[in-house]
Amino acid sequence: MSRVEHDFIGELELSDDVFYGVQTFRALNNFDITGEHLCDYPNFIYAYAKVKKAAALANCELKLLDQEKCDYICKACDEVLTGKYNDQFVVDMLQGGAGTSTNMNTNEVLANIGLTLMGHKKGEYQFLHPNDHLNLSQSTNDSYPTAIKLAIWADLADLYPAIAQLRDSFFAKAEEMKDVIKMGRTQLQDAVPMTLGQEFHAFGTMLDEDLERLKEASTQMLSVNMGGTAIGTGINAHPDYPKVVVKYLREITGEEIVSSPDLIAATPDCSGYVHVMGTLKRMAVKLSKTCNDLRLLGSGPRCGLNEVNLPKMQPGSSIMPGKVNPVIPEVVNQVCYHVIGADVAVNFAAEAGQLQLNVMEPAIAYEIFKSIKMLKQACVTLAEKCVDGITPNKDVCLNFVLGSIGIVTALNPYIGYENSASIAKEALVTGKRVRDIALERGLLTAEQIDELLTPENMLNPKLSAESRAHFAKK
Amino acid sequence: MSRVEHDFIGELELSDDVFYGVQTFRALNNFDITGEHLCDYPNFIYAYAKVKKAAALANCELKLLDQEKCDYICKACDEVLTGKYNDQFVVDMLQGGAGTSTNMNTNEVLANIGLTLMGHKKGEYQFLHPNDHLNLSQSTNDSYPTAIKLAIWADLADLYPAIAQLRDSFFAKAEEMKDVIKMGRTQLQDAVPMTLGQEFHAFGTMLDEDLERLKEASTQMLSVNMGGTAIGTGINAHPDYPKVVVKYLREITGEEIVSSPDLIAATPDCSGYVHVMGTLKRMAVKLSKTCNDLRLLGSGPRCGLNEVNLPKMQPGSSIMPGKVNPVIPEVVNQVCYHVIGADVAVNFAAEAGQLQLNVMEPAIAYEIFKSIKMLKQACVTLAEKCVDGITPNKDVCLNFVLGSIGIVTALNPYIGYENSASIAKEALVTGKRVRDIALERGLLTAEQIDELLTPENMLNPKLSAESRAHFAKK
Amino acid sequence: MSRVEHDFIGELELSDDVFYGVQTFRALNNFDITGEHLCDYPNFIYAYAKVKKAAALANCELKLLDQEKCDYICKACDEVLTGKYNDQFVVDMLQGGAGTSTNMNTNEVLANIGLTLMGHKKGEYQFLHPNDHLNLSQSTNDSYPTAIKLAIWADLADLYPAIAQLRDSFFAKAEEMKDVIKMGRTQLQDAVPMTLGQEFHAFGTMLDEDLERLKEASTQMLSVNMGGTAIGTGINAHPDYPKVVVKYLREITGEEIVSSPDLIAATPDCSGYVHVMGTLKRMAVKLSKTCNDLRLLGSGPRCGLNEVNLPKMQPGSSIMPGKVNPVIPEVVNQVCYHVIGADVAVNFAAEAGQLQLNVMEPAIAYEIFKSIKMLKQACVTLAEKCVDGITPNKDVCLNFVLGSIGIVTALNPYIGYENSASIAKEALVTGKRVRDIALERGLLTAEQIDELLTPENMLNPKLSAESRAHFAKK
Amino acid sequence: MSRVEHDFIGELELSDDVFYGVQTFRALNNFDITGEHLCDYPNFIYAYAKVKKAAALANCELKLLDQEKCDYICKACDEVLTGKYNDQFVVDMLQGGAGTSTNMNTNEVLANIGLTLMGHKKGEYQFLHPNDHLNLSQSTNDSYPTAIKLAIWADLADLYPAIAQLRDSFFAKAEEMKDVIKMGRTQLQDAVPMTLGQEFHAFGTMLDEDLERLKEASTQMLSVNMGGTAIGTGINAHPDYPKVVVKYLREITGEEIVSSPDLIAATPDCSGYVHVMGTLKRMAVKLSKTCNDLRLLGSGPRCGLNEVNLPKMQPGSSIMPGKVNPVIPEVVNQVCYHVIGADVAVNFAAEAGQLQLNVMEPAIAYEIFKSIKMLKQACVTLAEKCVDGITPNKDVCLNFVLGSIGIVTALNPYIGYENSASIAKEALVTGKRVRDIALERGLLTAEQIDELLTPENMLNPKLSAESRAHFAKK
Repeated sequence: MSRVEHDFIGELELSDDVFYGVQTFRALNNFDITGEHLCDYPNFIYAYAKVKKAAALANCELKLLDQEKCDYICKACDEVLTGKYNDQFVVDMLQGGAGTSTNMNTNEVLANIGLTLMGHKKGEYQFLHPNDHLNLSQSTNDSYPTAIKLAIWADLADLYPAIAQLRDSFFAKAEEMKDVIKMGRTQLQDAVPMTLGQEFHAFGTMLDEDLERLKEASTQMLSVNMGGTAIGTGINAHPDYPKVVVKYLREITGEEIVSSPDLIAATPDCSGYVHVMGTLKRMAVKLSKTCNDLRLLGSGPRCGLNEVNLPKMQPGSSIMPGKVNPVIPEVVNQVCYHVIGADVAVNFAAEAGQLQLNVMEPAIAYEIFKSIKMLKQACVTLAEKCVDGITPNKDVCLNFVLGSIGIVTALNPYIGYENSASIAKEALVTGKRVRDIALERGLLTAEQIDELLTPENMLNPKLSAESRAHFAKK
Repeated sequence: MSRVEHDFIGELELSDDVFYGVQTFRALNNFDITGEHLCDYPNFIYAYAKVKKAAALANCELKLLDQEKCDYICKACDEVLTGKYNDQFVVDMLQGGAGTSTNMNTNEVLANIGLTLMGHKKGEYQFLHPNDHLNLSQSTNDSYPTAIKLAIWADLADLYPAIAQLRDSFFAKAEEMKDVIKMGRTQLQDAVPMTLGQEFHAFGTMLDEDLERLKEASTQMLSVNMGGTAIGTGINAHPDYPKVVVKYLREITGEEIVSSPDLIAATPDCSGYVHVMGTLKRMAVKLSKTCNDLRLLGSGPRCGLNEVNLPKMQPGSSIMPGKVNPVIPEVVNQVCYHVIGADVAVNFAAEAGQLQLNVMEPAIAYEIFKSIKMLKQACVTLAEKCVDGITPNKDVCLNFVLGSIGIVTALNPYIGYENSASIAKEALVTGKRVRDIALERGLLTAEQIDELLTPENMLNPKLSAESRAHFAKK
Repeated sequence: MSRVEHDFIGELELSDDVFYGVQTFRALNNFDITGEHLCDYPNFIYAYAKVKKAAALANCELKLLDQEKCDYICKACDEVLTGKYNDQFVVDMLQGGAGTSTNMNTNEVLANIGLTLMGHKKGEYQFLHPNDHLNLSQSTNDSYPTAIKLAIWADLADLYPAIAQLRDSFFAKAEEMKDVIKMGRTQLQDAVPMTLGQEFHAFGTMLDEDLERLKEASTQMLSVNMGGTAIGTGINAHPDYPKVVVKYLREITGEEIVSSPDLIAATPDCSGYVHVMGTLKRMAVKLSKTCNDLRLLGSGPRCGLNEVNLPKMQPGSSIMPGKVNPVIPEVVNQVCYHVIGADVAVNFAAEAGQLQLNVMEPAIAYEIFKSIKMLKQACVTLAEKCVDGITPNKDVCLNFVLGSIGIVTALNPYIGYENSASIAKEALVTGKRVRDIALERGLLTAEQIDELLTPENMLNPKLSAESRAHFAKK
Repeated sequence: MSRVEHDFIGELELSDDVFYGVQTFRALNNFDITGEHLCDYPNFIYAYAKVKKAAALANCELKLLDQEKCDYICKACDEVLTGKYNDQFVVDMLQGGAGTSTNMNTNEVLANIGLTLMGHKKGEYQFLHPNDHLNLSQSTNDSYPTAIKLAIWADLADLYPAIAQLRDSFFAKAEEMKDVIKMGRTQLQDAVPMTLGQEFHAFGTMLDEDLERLKEASTQMLSVNMGGTAIGTGINAHPDYPKVVVKYLREITGEEIVSSPDLIAATPDCSGYVHVMGTLKRMAVKLSKTCNDLRLLGSGPRCGLNEVNLPKMQPGSSIMPGKVNPVIPEVVNQVCYHVIGADVAVNFAAEAGQLQLNVMEPAIAYEIFKSIKMLKQACVTLAEKCVDGITPNKDVCLNFVLGSIGIVTALNPYIGYENSASIAKEALVTGKRVRDIALERGLLTAEQIDELLTPENMLNPKLSAESRAHFAKK
């Protein structure tokens, strides 16, 4: 069975099974680019349904849409929100037209669901029209960015627990390893002692800050341009519409959505997206550094640092038997690189806005949605398949400290930088231990030296006038 | 029905339906990142099968693999090359382990196909072993990059006709519009006359050069490190193996594959990929510029340049009736931005190589494969759904020329830059035509002026001592 | 005259004219990379002097430095703050060593100024030592990032007025042109009417938001890791030092500086820089879009949009007389591209941190300092040499509106999308005006049509139940 | 003393000291952006002088310029080529106008030098005119990109010896260390043995390939659009001019310069620059990886890999006495990050070309010139101040090999992957040596094991049917 639909380009035959209409069908033919479609990003579908519902309620309140149509639109939106019509959202994520195809896909599916609920046939748009009713008081240019923003908001809400889980894994691991003394390293050179607990706690702290920054950035997603219609002037909208539709959006979503103060600026403005993507990128930059560190700390087992054991997830080599690789941090690195690249793609897309619109918003949405999805998987994977199972190699860690030259730093405030440097130099050349050289030189007593060089004593600030007096007593 | 397999991590139960084995299964659980899997990039699967076949034949020639096993491996590879086992290649494109999971997915599927052909059961690896036989004389670290390179080569071979098609569309359109005179513009300011044919020919020329550069870059994909095994030293390979395996690779693929001269350098070296990705990016940068131009030339219809009509592919607006947008160039721009971003991701991944390997190769492969796929779709889409259907607005083009001030340039060699500038200034201020002012000033006769200002006369170089004499005759 | 200084690498002869010492001299020889030196970024020098002063005061309060030495250090810092020693800061902006050379350049210059003030000779470090006194309780790893952050803070404080000036130029120009009606454009296609005032106001609004975001981001520069010393554990510092030194930093700078809550995380963490650079990039992306728009609006004069005149700053062509180009927006675009590229450089540098330190901080500082400097010049240049002098071409703007098809949008709520689309289609094909076709079709009266199509009536939302009733009266 | 000059914008007073004229002066005022000026890139000045000389000779040959003027122009160009007028090239590297200011700076300086040589006063342009004579048959749009390309060619010619020097340093060091056996590492995990010589040779090999690729890419700089004039149509040029001017360019430069086959495509086409910048970026990506490796290999001295000693260039810490950091590789990394970022800036600038010109060429030139300069300094610095002075720690290297588990790989072809994996697992858990476990298990004789596990035997491919027979003899 099929039906015929038309738009001003002409007529087209559609299978009667599909809820989408002629404009969606054109878009389906026009855009076959990525292999990823609207239905792969369900939060986006749901966000758009909420926008349509809010618009219908606002139009009804403003007497521009009758109560019956409004009711059926709302019911159709609720149907879509169950997820069971996801497969009707078929347009490629990348698309020309600034999202018009996504908007019309939504309008057409909702209209046909509504028509079905009303007892009409699909395509009998005289009873419920994709443009005149579903799109009433709207343009793609305000409803599409609003839906993107709400979808990013929802995707981020899914990302936060993943970040928090990873952060908590680091904190839990830090607590477990809080007494494992090891050498800190700067510039890959031996520095001064610390604990594995301190090191892992720092990984957690950084994620905690990312979480805060993402939440901060996400608030830019709550400022929407609904009511601006085509170019922000609000043509074909009721003067009260921006206020009323935002009221309903707030009700439907439960979020503190506000109307952008300058709708003409807001229409082409992609800086909120640039900001969110940039904040995801910021997180990726750090998460990549953390994975680099995990791989360094777990390097070896015999010819590397070998301070921690990462869980063995799979055989590491098709040729080297018994080799186990840090595959989980490695794949997380790869996700981070993708996200950093996506940030550049978004920069290009955002810069390409012209005059009253940015037609590249579909690209921006695609890059951000995909980045969030990948980061979320990365965080959970890293937490569950790596961090949670890490165990320390205490002896390795301690032996590095005992053999290191860097601990001479602790003598510095008491014997001066130049004496310390001279001891260090001798230690390096001769292979002697710092303690022994310091003792030979007689600058401090054996007791003083041992007190200063006890690793535990180097983990926290200790210098004071009293300590100076104490170590000068000799 | 199920079977139990083991590796040195432990045992696992597998459905007996699947041809992959324990290591693939671990990877499936470890990596759930992108939603894109090996099976989404079939050229990669086929390339790996060719690598395995070449290795088997080389091992057999070198007496390291018996003829029967070799035969069954070759048959299994041929089976995979039919495409009917694609669904057994299940690992996520992004993966830790430097591709070991992809290699083992291939080894296990081939082993089990081979076992089945032999009349054994899946998992009876004593008769055909994923490591000892399928991976003989190989490491992931040589077979995986080799497979990536052959896959890129094959993907590029699919891309070339798409580029050529788009180039030819531009050339055909140029031929059609070779007599349409229009104003050239530099810095968006009116410059001097040209034809639409010249403009579109230039779009084609640029693609032609991209094609040449891509082919040039692609030759780097034919230099492989087979035989380097784990780190390029060739441990566990026969001294003649690099030569022999490359001979078979050449036979199987029909391509001029060579062995990298320094296998230790070649193992971690990702610069060939960086080069190919950079060349794809180079193409994207220009293609994006071309799409920007198409959108500028088609701007309007009443308030823009409106020199050409792009085919109307779909209604352009949910609110502005009759609006038609340049949706095809727009989506191509978006593809280009993705590719430019992917280049940055590849830079990061390539830079992250450490010591004897680059563990980020899966990320590099993923970004390149996806970029090629998207560019291919973009080229065909742009050719078929846009360029082929473009029509010129001849009157618009001509009227721009006739009304322009820029044509004063043609007087320059005869009356000097300062006189010409003065005429231009007057034309701009008063709105008079250049011709009239030039005539008023009496610097040239009416005939001379008309000859110089005929648009056709400005399309090619014409200045000479004779022309100077001719126009000085007055 | 010369003096000999030594460090643990060996001895070196220095001209007695110079205030810097042996370590600076080594760095001068080691790093000859960019042609840009510390002295090119004076806010950085001053920030470091403030850090050293705060450290001295804190050390003195904590009885670790005697009052006399403290006084001379403070005096030396004040001398540096006058700017007259800038030429002693000679190290290349790019440098290995995580900023140690910058720190030692500062320590040595301050020590020698202090020694001179004390009446000693340069190099008599037994009286005031670059390490033991100037660097007391500090490491490069805490003092250097603190100085960078304070310098970025100061540089941003210089940037804000430049942004505000440009914003105000846009707002003033918007006010001037608030009655100039023109066509809005989406996707470079004619959309619906607006005013030049609205368009320019939007440019200002976007900058206003940038200003807010930059200020928001900049607060991350006030969180410092002073007292963390080498790796954040605070080795060789007094337990109260972080608190006390921050108190003095607040006094000296007048800013709300705070101590990072996790000094071990803070030491290698570059995400504050990534955030600031990302926010500068965000601004660059939008500013570039604004410049693109200015160039589009000023395109022509005869073959472009020509809606505004940009001030003529210089002859535009060596061959085309009278041509004037939008040179100021063009150079601002170029600055924006540099900044967007610098963001990627910073991503790389930040990701390259390893374990307890990010040794690439000099690269980060260089890219950010230079980006801010260029953006500042760009904003002032754009305001003064372009925006302030823009004039509108009112007739051009109005005629576009009167001739456009896009105005059919205003009929949409009253005659429906499909009728409107049909009118638009006819207008495009026949060249007739929208008004005339609408009239012919008899869907509305002439009075109704004229009321709806008056451009002024399209600048604001007007739809309501009453307007519907009004226009349905016919 | 001063003189007054005018252009069509108006009159300006200039100091009589300066050789540049009114248009340069305007540009000086318009563009104060980067702090870097034409005079900072002398190869660019010289390249432009060569272009002007070739144009004069071609014009003379074509009877468009009289012999005397031609002679004086040539003399003036030769003067500029001595370098003594560099300070007259004052315009900021970043500039609007697509390089017109640079072209006019060149035209004006050459005209005034010529006038002086003729015995006229500066500014008496009736005798030698910046536009009518110096710019004859040219536009900025052909002469400027030609000069950029020749300057890049010259800059690259300066870069090649720096790369070659670094490559040769690596090769020399490889030769020195060819017998130092060490463990190879993949994914930072112990792999199989190799030599330091092999590792350093690979560093050299990669640079060698960069050199080849850069030379390949650079040939794109020899394809010039001289004669295209304003937009590539050749308006105001003699039909034979492109051929003749290129003949003279070849003579003057000694390079194989050719005329672009499609001058209209060539005028806005920036893909040659994108290609060169991309190839520099490709080199930067690898060079950064090499520096990362040097820093890893030199990590320690006690808590890192410590396989090589990098020369001690300067004290490494203001707080940790005796610490020495790998400052030279570190600064080279920073250069690489800058170059990778510059590549993105160039992508943006190249993509921003519109219609018949790319107005962002000054940005492209600036980013490329600066990248080449920094890379050159980086290569020489890395060679002389780091690689040349590296020494191996032979004992460290050997002990890693002897203690490693990875050497079990060598048993693989003889006892099978699964047996080997089991030995590896036991070694890891118990800490026993591979040799001892293999012996206990009785799979091979002690002699066989020792033969296989001798590190020297693992450095090259050895597997064969004979070796299999030999080791199966037991």
